[in-house]
Amino acid sequence: MKKVLFATSALVMSAGFAAAEVAVSGDGRMGMIYDGDDIQFSSRARVLFTLTGESDAGLSFGGKFRVDQENYSSNPGGRSAAKGSAGEVWISGAYGKLSMGDVVGAAEAAIGDLYEIGYTDGEFANDIEEIWYLVGDGNNKDQGPTVLYEYSIDSISFYASATDGSNTAWYSTTGSGDWGDADATDGSDDVAYSLAAKYDAGNWWASLAYSKHDDADEIALGAEATFDQFSVKGVYAKYSDLYDGVYEFDSTIGLSAAYNMDAITVKGFWRRDSWDATVAGVSDEDYDSFGIGADYELGGGATLAGAIIDSDYLDGGRGDTVADLGVKFKF
Amino acid sequence: MKKVLFATSALVMSAGFAAAEVAVSGDGRMGMIYDGDDIQFSSRARVLFTLTGESDAGLSFGGKFRVDQENYSSNPGGRSAAKGSAGEVWISGAYGKLSMGDVVGAAEAAIGDLYEIGYTDGEFANDIEEIWYLVGDGNNKDQGPTVLYEYSIDSISFYASATDGSNTAWYSTTGSGDWGDADATDGSDDVAYSLAAKYDAGNWWASLAYSKHDDADEIALGAEATFDQFSVKGVYAKYSDLYDGVYEFDSTIGLSAAYNMDAITVKGFWRRDSWDATVAGVSDEDYDSFGIGADYELGGGATLAGAIIDSDYLDGGRGDTVADLGVKFKF
Amino acid sequence: MKKVLFATSALVMSAGFAAAEVAVSGDGRMGMIYDGDDIQFSSRARVLFTLTGESDAGLSFGGKFRVDQENYSSNPGGRSAAKGSAGEVWISGAYGKLSMGDVVGAAEAAIGDLYEIGYTDGEFANDIEEIWYLVGDGNNKDQGPTVLYEYSIDSISFYASATDGSNTAWYSTTGSGDWGDADATDGSDDVAYSLAAKYDAGNWWASLAYSKHDDADEIALGAEATFDQFSVKGVYAKYSDLYDGVYEFDSTIGLSAAYNMDAITVKGFWRRDSWDATVAGVSDEDYDSFGIGADYELGGGATLAGAIIDSDYLDGGRGDTVADLGVKFKF
Repeated sequence: MKKVLFATSALVMSAGFAAAEVAVSGDGRMGMIYDGDDIQFSSRARVLFTLTGESDAGLSFGGKFRVDQENYSSNPGGRSAAKGSAGEVWISGAYGKLSMGDVVGAAEAAIGDLYEIGYTDGEFANDIEEIWYLVGDGNNKDQGPTVLYEYSIDSISFYASATDGSNTAWYSTTGSGDWGDADATDGSDDVAYSLAAKYDAGNWWASLAYSKHDDADEIALGAEATFDQFSVKGVYAKYSDLYDGVYEFDSTIGLSAAYNMDAITVKGFWRRDSWDATVAGVSDEDYDSFGIGADYELGGGATLAGAIIDSDYLDGGRGDTVADLGVKFKF
Repeated sequence: MKKVLFATSALVMSAGFAAAEVAVSGDGRMGMIYDGDDIQFSSRARVLFTLTGESDAGLSFGGKFRVDQENYSSNPGGRSAAKGSAGEVWISGAYGKLSMGDVVGAAEAAIGDLYEIGYTDGEFANDIEEIWYLVGDGNNKDQGPTVLYEYSIDSISFYASATDGSNTAWYSTTGSGDWGDADATDGSDDVAYSLAAKYDAGNWWASLAYSKHDDADEIALGAEATFDQFSVKGVYAKYSDLYDGVYEFDSTIGLSAAYNMDAITVKGFWRRDSWDATVAGVSDEDYDSFGIGADYELGGGATLAGAIIDSDYLDGGRGDTVADLGVKFKF
Repeated sequence: MKKVLFATSALVMSAGFAAAEVAVSGDGRMGMIYDGDDIQFSSRARVLFTLTGESDAGLSFGGKFRVDQENYSSNPGGRSAAKGSAGEVWISGAYGKLSMGDVVGAAEAAIGDLYEIGYTDGEFANDIEEIWYLVGDGNNKDQGPTVLYEYSIDSISFYASATDGSNTAWYSTTGSGDWGDADATDGSDDVAYSLAAKYDAGNWWASLAYSKHDDADEIALGAEATFDQFSVKGVYAKYSDLYDGVYEFDSTIGLSAAYNMDAITVKGFWRRDSWDATVAGVSDEDYDSFGIGADYELGGGATLAGAIIDSDYLDGGRGDTVADLGVKFKF
């Protein structure tokens, strides 16, 4: 390939042929968070690479990752697009889209999370708006890349995702297992998989997903509806045999809503996580989290945003109520 | 080099609409350094992302960081644009410019450093041309991002910078403090701040700055004048209660000058740092550093440069005189 | 945001002036590997920066590195384009091309490796198609950057490469040696150098190279010929005084061949490495590795590829036969 890149766009337009290319976009944010005790400055800038191409037969292919997702040589267990443990690559055609890397699992692809609020998109409260799916999206990375297959026909979409069932580190893949040891036990070598379907009627959709990893499984339901400026989304996830010490994680129920008036969007969510005690003398626990925030679009990719989140998970000596206020940018 | 990169600008101009964009530029260098004992090869290549946008109301915003400033996942205490501890983001309008991240402090913004010499821009002698300002520019990173505010009216510019006074690590900000511990003591949780003013008369300017962190403070004066091809700059900084073991850092006085003849610029600097002994039987110490170098512009972004620096700080077994010679590039 | 990025080239071309620029290209791959025991997913996405410029006198200069080659702050011993231990910079004119950084040595520049096979380009078998050259290409990085000089006249090319003979870490260069210690012994401080010549007759070429580092030396011969759709390449390298514990690495002989039919290329290689025992009671060993694979060009930068490699080096409990199958992309 001749390295005339950039210009690809220009050449493509004038010469009328398709060419593989790399697009560079970015985001940033700056503002203040209240961490339950202090007010702190919090800012960031990031760059995303989006790689796209098309084969002679019309297959689309591509990849994407951010600069901050590339870190392998110093951190083999960390995120690295060059090792398949961050970012993703895909190929797409009439028979659907196949993605590999640090992809979301089928359940998350079909259902997703509760609405993000605040200029840090919920990060100031540890992203408590995110549903904890068993497969994909950062889980199971000890097995290297995850695969996600998506196929849509009319109003119905199907999703399937899986890991490879091997946590063996090898020359061209990452893993937590002992090098070259077929029976490595430090981490699971069971396939983690997820299946999901979604029906999208335009102004509402509903999804159902089943996921499995080792003994644990997860059944998740999600639906969202939009009425004029108002939208509402609900998620329910029921887990089996998912242990965390003395508790077993039983279920999550979550609800979020948004109301849009011109440049302003008000958003909120509530979730309850139920933990069952597995040891005598310990009682079951419910953890509630709720938040409310507002976005004000400044145009040109800038948004002024702020939010307050109160979560039982944050109640560890500091206050359990946190807040953020700032601007976020898209470039 | 004209930063014509990426065409967005061109397209935007012709199409008459504003768009956020990412510009990619870079630098490089190659040559030899004499480290006081051996001659060594020294080279590098870097890429800088500059993100820019404009809101509907005409506010400018942006961010910038280099690829080598993105390293968080493997080094939480290191530089990361994605965590606000490297690079910066800003918003700018009629009321001034507000930046956040790894910004320079007010004192450095108003006064700056002595002239950089050599193809490694002084790095071959540990950047001894840089004045050691108390606030910003890599200091106080245990508190996460620093904020810098700049405002100019006619010939006068005002600068103010500060940290947030909290070294607590939290989900969306970095810090050296114990997680969630409001009373973390490993590092200061006092606000570090700096205030400065600059008067710019065109062919000369003068600045005054005051900075404070914990018990230490710094008063700094700087001025620069240009007469035809000759320019000269002086900096004086006086510190109080800034301890470094058995010595207290008292003051720095520095002077640099440059003379330009067509493609050639000859530059030099001298600085003296005074250290007061705080222990009986130890005497005060003055550390002198001086350097001279020349740049030869090759055009197109290439410069041939070399320099010699002699510094009392380098006198540790090897020689105290170091040198570099090579080419540096801007892309 | 519209992703119209990059058009510099276009602007430059139309405006008729030369400008330094940064080109962004990328690659990706996804598929499955058989690691001798399990089938695993293996994917990646990468981005390469290519920096180019030209001085007023017509000297070309540039640099290149990938995002995943930038990692210094968290891993001083790792690859970093910003420290000269990854990527490279160069300057080129009528008198040849001079490169510095993590360059290939003269022997590798003149001869190169056996043909890469599979969608992971041999990485699934630890890149056993690569000849182990003494100088450059990742070796001798304890001495910081390596220098490579290339000059061609008619059909003959000359190559010379060297390290600086100093493993002392210094402010603007990396190294394994103790900071500031002129007599650091942890790693060699002997210059590693390589000299090579190549005769290229168009449809065939032959090269000879000599390399030296410490007591070890290497003599390497390589040749390649192309007949219509068929090409064949042979490499022989003979080492002296290159110890690895109880064995001395004696020699490598390698052969590879490729046959191209339209979009399909079938490629294979064989190599034998001879190890001489240096301890009584241990016998000499020959390690054989061979592989065969096929590439199918899908157009637009996409290639479907698969390969099988069998290597005595892989025989460590798992099987000694590994394979890969997947797609690779160029953007």
